Amino acid sequence: MIRSVYYTNHHIIPQTNLSIEEIHRALQDPEGLLWVCLSAPTEEELQTILGNLFHFHPLAIEDCTSHGYQVSKIDEFRDYLFIVMHALPSGKFWEISEPIEVDIFLGKNYVVSVTHESYVSPIETVWKHLEKDERLITRGSDFLCHAILDHLVDDYLPVLDEIDEQIEFLEDQVLQSPTPDVLSKTLEMKHALMSMRRLVAPQREIMNRLSRDEFPMIDQQSKIYFRDIYDHLVRLQDLSESLRDIVTGILDIYLNSTSLRLNEIMKALTIVSTIFLPLSFVAGVYGMNFIHMPELGWRYGYLMVWVIFFLIASGMILFFKKRNWF
Amino acid sequence: MIRSVYYTNHHIIPQTNLSIEEIHRALQDPEGLLWVCLSAPTEEELQTILGNLFHFHPLAIEDCTSHGYQVSKIDEFRDYLFIVMHALPSGKFWEISEPIEVDIFLGKNYVVSVTHESYVSPIETVWKHLEKDERLITRGSDFLCHAILDHLVDDYLPVLDEIDEQIEFLEDQVLQSPTPDVLSKTLEMKHALMSMRRLVAPQREIMNRLSRDEFPMIDQQSKIYFRDIYDHLVRLQDLSESLRDIVTGILDIYLNSTSLRLNEIMKALTIVSTIFLPLSFVAGVYGMNFIHMPELGWRYGYLMVWVIFFLIASGMILFFKKRNWF
Amino acid sequence: MIRSVYYTNHHIIPQTNLSIEEIHRALQDPEGLLWVCLSAPTEEELQTILGNLFHFHPLAIEDCTSHGYQVSKIDEFRDYLFIVMHALPSGKFWEISEPIEVDIFLGKNYVVSVTHESYVSPIETVWKHLEKDERLITRGSDFLCHAILDHLVDDYLPVLDEIDEQIEFLEDQVLQSPTPDVLSKTLEMKHALMSMRRLVAPQREIMNRLSRDEFPMIDQQSKIYFRDIYDHLVRLQDLSESLRDIVTGILDIYLNSTSLRLNEIMKALTIVSTIFLPLSFVAGVYGMNFIHMPELGWRYGYLMVWVIFFLIASGMILFFKKRNWF
Amino acid sequence: MIRSVYYTNHHIIPQTNLSIEEIHRALQDPEGLLWVCLSAPTEEELQTILGNLFHFHPLAIEDCTSHGYQVSKIDEFRDYLFIVMHALPSGKFWEISEPIEVDIFLGKNYVVSVTHESYVSPIETVWKHLEKDERLITRGSDFLCHAILDHLVDDYLPVLDEIDEQIEFLEDQVLQSPTPDVLSKTLEMKHALMSMRRLVAPQREIMNRLSRDEFPMIDQQSKIYFRDIYDHLVRLQDLSESLRDIVTGILDIYLNSTSLRLNEIMKALTIVSTIFLPLSFVAGVYGMNFIHMPELGWRYGYLMVWVIFFLIASGMILFFKKRNWF
Amino acid sequence: MIRSVYYTNHHIIPQTNLSIEEIHRALQDPEGLLWVCLSAPTEEELQTILGNLFHFHPLAIEDCTSHGYQVSKIDEFRDYLFIVMHALPSGKFWEISEPIEVDIFLGKNYVVSVTHESYVSPIETVWKHLEKDERLITRGSDFLCHAILDHLVDDYLPVLDEIDEQIEFLEDQVLQSPTPDVLSKTLEMKHALMSMRRLVAPQREIMNRLSRDEFPMIDQQSKIYFRDIYDHLVRLQDLSESLRDIVTGILDIYLNSTSLRLNEIMKALTIVSTIFLPLSFVAGVYGMNFIHMPELGWRYGYLMVWVIFFLIASGMILFFKKRNWF
Ligand SMILES: [Mg+2]
Ligand SMILES: [Mg+2]
Ligand SMILES: [Mg+2]
Ligand SMILES: [Mg+2]
Ligand SMILES: [Mg+2]
Ligand SMILES: [Mg+2]
Ligand SMILES: [Mg+2]
Ligand SMILES: [Mg+2]
Ligand SMILES: [Mg+2]
Ligand SMILES: [Mg+2]
Ligand SMILES: [Mg+2]
Ligand SMILES: [Mg+2]
Ligand SMILES: [Mg+2]
Ligand SMILES: [Mg+2]
Ligand SMILES: [Mg+2]
Ligand SMILES: [Mg+2]
Ligand SMILES: [Mg+2]
Ligand SMILES: [Mg+2]
Ligand SMILES: [Mg+2]
Ligand SMILES: [Mg+2]
Ligand SMILES: [Mg+2]
Ligand SMILES: [Mg+2]
Ligand SMILES: [Mg+2]
Ligand SMILES: [Mg+2]
Ligand SMILES: [Mg+2]
Ligand SMILES: [Mg+2]
Ligand SMILES: [Mg+2]
Ligand SMILES: [Mg+2]
Ligand SMILES: [Mg+2]
Ligand SMILES: [Mg+2]
Ligand SMILES: [Mg+2]
Repeated sequence: MIRSVYYTNHHIIPQTNLSIEEIHRALQDPEGLLWVCLSAPTEEELQTILGNLFHFHPLAIEDCTSHGYQVSKIDEFRDYLFIVMHALPSGKFWEISEPIEVDIFLGKNYVVSVTHESYVSPIETVWKHLEKDERLITRGSDFLCHAILDHLVDDYLPVLDEIDEQIEFLEDQVLQSPTPDVLSKTLEMKHALMSMRRLVAPQREIMNRLSRDEFPMIDQQSKIYFRDIYDHLVRLQDLSESLRDIVTGILDIYLNSTSLRLNEIMKALTIVSTIFLPLSFVAGVYGMNFIHMPELGWRYGYLMVWVIFFLIASGMILFFKKRNWF
Repeated sequence: MIRSVYYTNHHIIPQTNLSIEEIHRALQDPEGLLWVCLSAPTEEELQTILGNLFHFHPLAIEDCTSHGYQVSKIDEFRDYLFIVMHALPSGKFWEISEPIEVDIFLGKNYVVSVTHESYVSPIETVWKHLEKDERLITRGSDFLCHAILDHLVDDYLPVLDEIDEQIEFLEDQVLQSPTPDVLSKTLEMKHALMSMRRLVAPQREIMNRLSRDEFPMIDQQSKIYFRDIYDHLVRLQDLSESLRDIVTGILDIYLNSTSLRLNEIMKALTIVSTIFLPLSFVAGVYGMNFIHMPELGWRYGYLMVWVIFFLIASGMILFFKKRNWF
Repeated sequence: MIRSVYYTNHHIIPQTNLSIEEIHRALQDPEGLLWVCLSAPTEEELQTILGNLFHFHPLAIEDCTSHGYQVSKIDEFRDYLFIVMHALPSGKFWEISEPIEVDIFLGKNYVVSVTHESYVSPIETVWKHLEKDERLITRGSDFLCHAILDHLVDDYLPVLDEIDEQIEFLEDQVLQSPTPDVLSKTLEMKHALMSMRRLVAPQREIMNRLSRDEFPMIDQQSKIYFRDIYDHLVRLQDLSESLRDIVTGILDIYLNSTSLRLNEIMKALTIVSTIFLPLSFVAGVYGMNFIHMPELGWRYGYLMVWVIFFLIASGMILFFKKRNWF
Repeated sequence: MIRSVYYTNHHIIPQTNLSIEEIHRALQDPEGLLWVCLSAPTEEELQTILGNLFHFHPLAIEDCTSHGYQVSKIDEFRDYLFIVMHALPSGKFWEISEPIEVDIFLGKNYVVSVTHESYVSPIETVWKHLEKDERLITRGSDFLCHAILDHLVDDYLPVLDEIDEQIEFLEDQVLQSPTPDVLSKTLEMKHALMSMRRLVAPQREIMNRLSRDEFPMIDQQSKIYFRDIYDHLVRLQDLSESLRDIVTGILDIYLNSTSLRLNEIMKALTIVSTIFLPLSFVAGVYGMNFIHMPELGWRYGYLMVWVIFFLIASGMILFFKKRNWF
Repeated sequence: MIRSVYYTNHHIIPQTNLSIEEIHRALQDPEGLLWVCLSAPTEEELQTILGNLFHFHPLAIEDCTSHGYQVSKIDEFRDYLFIVMHALPSGKFWEISEPIEVDIFLGKNYVVSVTHESYVSPIETVWKHLEKDERLITRGSDFLCHAILDHLVDDYLPVLDEIDEQIEFLEDQVLQSPTPDVLSKTLEMKHALMSMRRLVAPQREIMNRLSRDEFPMIDQQSKIYFRDIYDHLVRLQDLSESLRDIVTGILDIYLNSTSLRLNEIMKALTIVSTIFLPLSFVAGVYGMNFIHMPELGWRYGYLMVWVIFFLIASGMILFFKKRNWF
């Protein structure tokens, strides 16, 4: 789907869904603002708009066309910037973990956005806001681009909060019942945090460059807005690192609980064995069939044996008590 | 709550709790020193003071308004610096671990401080010191700002000392009785140290910048004061790293004690089993009911069996002694 | 084998397999494009072409001659660049893991490629494309060199995908049946990923330099092509790091499954022992041959013993149930 | 205690223990060399000498006055350098591990040293050498300062050698008898090495700066002397890292020995159990009191049972032999 | 032993073993090439040659005199470079691991080499090559110095290959019989690799500086020769890192094999115990001496018990089969 919108001083009402001709003319107007928004376009549409109309570099177009995962990056061309970012899909991140590539061409008076999905939340949100928030229109293409990226990055925090919630649940869980299920879920969260880190780090670097370096299509006073997105990404990184620490703690407790439980099991076995093996031996002795066994004939022989049983058992129990095994 | 104080050569006694008008006029006086202190302000107060009166950047105001965690940072604007720091709350750090955000705007002749809590120790301490310590008044806004940050950072050391005390207690504990409780407390301390590190590192970087970079609102001779705070933060980092080493050592000892204890348990089981299983077997043999068992009729058969019992038991014990199992 | 091809404005049809004389003359033509392709050459051929004809530096020639592993690198000489890259052989990477060295000399109007293998996929592919893709001919030696390196790097992704597939298979496997075989295969994959990383990192650095630094034999507009290869290598690194995380997760699950299984085994042993040792003891008691043992004569003595057996056994089982051992 | 010594061309014999007046006059002489040495001074002495006489910066004086641990650092003031270093106390480092802070002010024609201890080895050594080694007097304050720091750093190597000796002893010990005592001593050494690293690293950085940066009070030809101290610190770091590797190896062997020992214990238990449990079962069978048990009446029944005992026992032993359990 | 050789245009035959006088005169000749080679010199010889004749800096002479380990380094003086490198002794590296220090002074027209050993392979090899390889004579002191360093570094690869061989042997070994001997050998190899890394890293840095920085005694066209040595050291580092990965893999397999073996042992114990403890209990029941035990008198009581034995045993075995314990 191709949408476009064009704001200019010549018209009071913005033009929408411009023809190729109109886009071509709009590009000549340095005071206007043009946004061409390609959502799940066909390869021909991509080639027509990006190649024939905007004359973007073939390599940038190739990056827009290709479907494989591409690390976030920023490429500087003479007249425009080419920015590759990654939006998060709705749904549980740790189950999907495939981000949605958002490609943006930022020129002096235009923004071209490309996504392979037909609905990408930050794009749609900004598109809707165009009517309400006039800053998006009056402050130029860099502010419009910032708005898309800001919403894109704002979508990360709720996802990290959800992971946080899961991890806090697992933290409680591991102390009560450290089942293998807790382990596999914890590893899943660790996995998700690592994916998160790999998404956040390069995007942070892009925002750092956008807010520090000199680009002709970014005004001095717009830089602080990219700095604000940078702050959000720093915070995301900080948060995910602190979550990773908790995850490591959960794994430590889990692994230790496994060996503590083994100790518990072995203690039970050892206590029972060391009490009953000697007792059984004594019983075995008086179960022997020797003809000449004086004790067997004693009046209180049987009583004596019970006394021996009692002494052995209580001796063992005292020994274990002293060793703090109970 | 909004407090303000204004020192100027025109008046001998400082003006307090200025009206909007008075603040406006005070800002025109390059020789004066104005401190506006917002403690737990309402959103309207924030908007009025920061936005309408001081005309700070909307993004900085947004950072003051928002309640989520924000990594410490410094933003440079043309006429002022915007500094986000984190004070420690009173109470045990490892139980709370939520720091209090302190936002400071530092201009040539003013300081504006913003906190969401109504009582924040470094702010209150400096506010009280204003009457006693005249350096706070005569040395300009940068020295006043330094004083707040210095007290803010000074609050970290007692907290780290408390953690140190806990850790030394746990170090003794783990050698005497390595209970799961020791493990969970140690992990809690590790957790607290990691939070500490994440708080200290960016604040150190801010002090580094304040003491090295050129800012128009910081005099050359004031930089060494920020360097002093930097030194404190370096020391905090150093201390927390050395505590982390001890914590790692505690965990090593704990985990090893678990498996040593398992070895102890298994030794007890093995010794008892290997002594009594053969004895019980011998007793079992002479408990058999075969009609033709010559030994049963022997005069000293029963005595002989006890000799066998004794030989087996002492042989086993000698074997274990040789293997150093006792 | 020595192949060569020469494109020039003077001839419409390219010259192939030039004589030493012709190569010498072709080098004088700044507008032409010469590719000399040495595949598994003899040492004399190397010396003749590289030394006597092109007068390359003896150390660069030594690097081409030597057979040992050489880390990827780029050496800058006055008139040419000497680039050492590594192509992947066909076959399973984790079984072979010996990459094929590809040495390239890049001059203003020539490319000389050297490999010790007679068939190296990226070289052959570009050689074949020469006839179809006229960009290879018209855009100069830097674009030709880029084409070889691009194909060389493009061969890495399928290999990493194959490793990915294996790892996902192992991830499923380790949860169902964590056999030692799964461990050794996982370690093999970890090994392969580490080799991969050691191959990718220096080649990434080479592409970074080729796309950033100023070299007289690389035009400004060709740099973006090396940047594109750089992007691919960044992605390879990213992918192999995320695979390494999964591998670490597999190892964690494997190791934990080993100790969980030990716990299972020990539980079985402990349950059986703690039930039957006391029972056997009781049976042993009434197997004793004392003359005076009242119970033996009781009418319901035998029944009573079975009641005792039942009480002990069900008591134990209840105890284990309470401890969640079933 | 305050000592001072003053060398000048005007006097042949050096002046010692100068009065405040004399120190003041000595400071005016750019050709002279003055050393004021404060050992365990009172706070008033510190304030008088450092504050009133030398007019050092209040923050530097505060650092000299304060007793807490301060990370090594160098502060550059206009007329002097303020250097904080750490000397090692005599006694076993791993038992004490509290270094002695040595504060040095280095001016063009003076050195002021401050320590809280009354006897600090490098200070005393250089003080004594003043009479013998005339280079200390003729080469200026930077060489004198270097001499103190050189002796201070030279004291580290014997300490590290002592740790090395301990570690080599533990390395032998752990293979012969891996007792918990070996573990705790090894962890103590690891701890000491980490403290060492935290002392050495910042001091190395100080020497690096003194030998590279331009300071007006350090001559070009004196820099190589600070470089020499830098080399010593590099070597200390190198040595302590290589010791840390050995310590890690000791811990690996220790932990493995614990589980190897468990395996040994469990083997013993398993062998005895698997031999005697079946034997006891067979004996138990023929201890049953059934009226109709044909074997009991057989002539060679008892012999047969012994044959069965022998077959079971030797079968088990063969099985264990085959599995290499002996 | 002091050797020297002097090449000059004035003489056709080189002068050897020059007197102090002759060395002094040779140093005046900017076109000549002088090599003074000190092998295991006395302290006086060192002082005479290095101090009195060449007037090298006392600190550099001290480094040549001292016997302790010195990290590889390069010191730049006005007229000469002072280079400390480390040659490998013959013999197995992992048993000796003490490298031989080689100190080189590189001037515009001379090389002075110092070693504490009388035979150091790279020195002797280059000394012998002087007669055969005229490049060593005609290309100046920098090329001569390069030749020594090149041979010195070339000696590292065979050592690393030997370690590689050992490690591959251990890799096979650990899968077949993971004995403690394999562990200690593997740790030894890990140790050797770490020593190797600590030797290679600073020497690599030296070669990097020699091939990049500007030194008056190193010609522009000689730099590529130091770059070649740099490449070799990069490769050594790369190789030793990949060996370290394999070593880590061996340790993983070893440690896992220990716990797998414990599992095997415990399985055997558990199977035997859980089969024979119930059987023995049943036998014990019918070994009781109650007067009223109906089963004892049954005609087929004994047969029934064997049926019970069989049912219990096969039930257990089926249970273990189902759990995959065989
Ligand atoms: Mg794409
Ligand atoms: Mg945002
Ligand atoms: Mg926002
Ligand atoms: Mg929480
Ligand atoms: Mg913000
Ligand atoms: Mg924002
Ligand atoms: Mg906030
Ligand atoms: Mg402070
Ligand atoms: Mg202070
Ligand atoms: Mg302490
Ligand atoms: Mg302590
Ligand atoms: Mg201080
Ligand atoms: Mg202070
Ligand atoms: Mg080669
Ligand atoms: Mg490609
Ligand atoms: Mg491509
Ligand atoms: Mg997957
Ligand atoms: Mg691309
Ligand atoms: Mg491409
Ligand atoms: Mg102090
Ligand atoms: Mg020294
Ligand atoms: Mg020395
Ligand atoms: Mg040693
Ligand atoms: Mg030295
Ligand atoms: Mg020295
Ligand atoms: Mg030496
Ligand atoms: Mg070499
Ligand atoms: Mg060579
Ligand atoms: Mg191999
Ligand atoms: Mg080479
Ligand atoms: Mg070479």
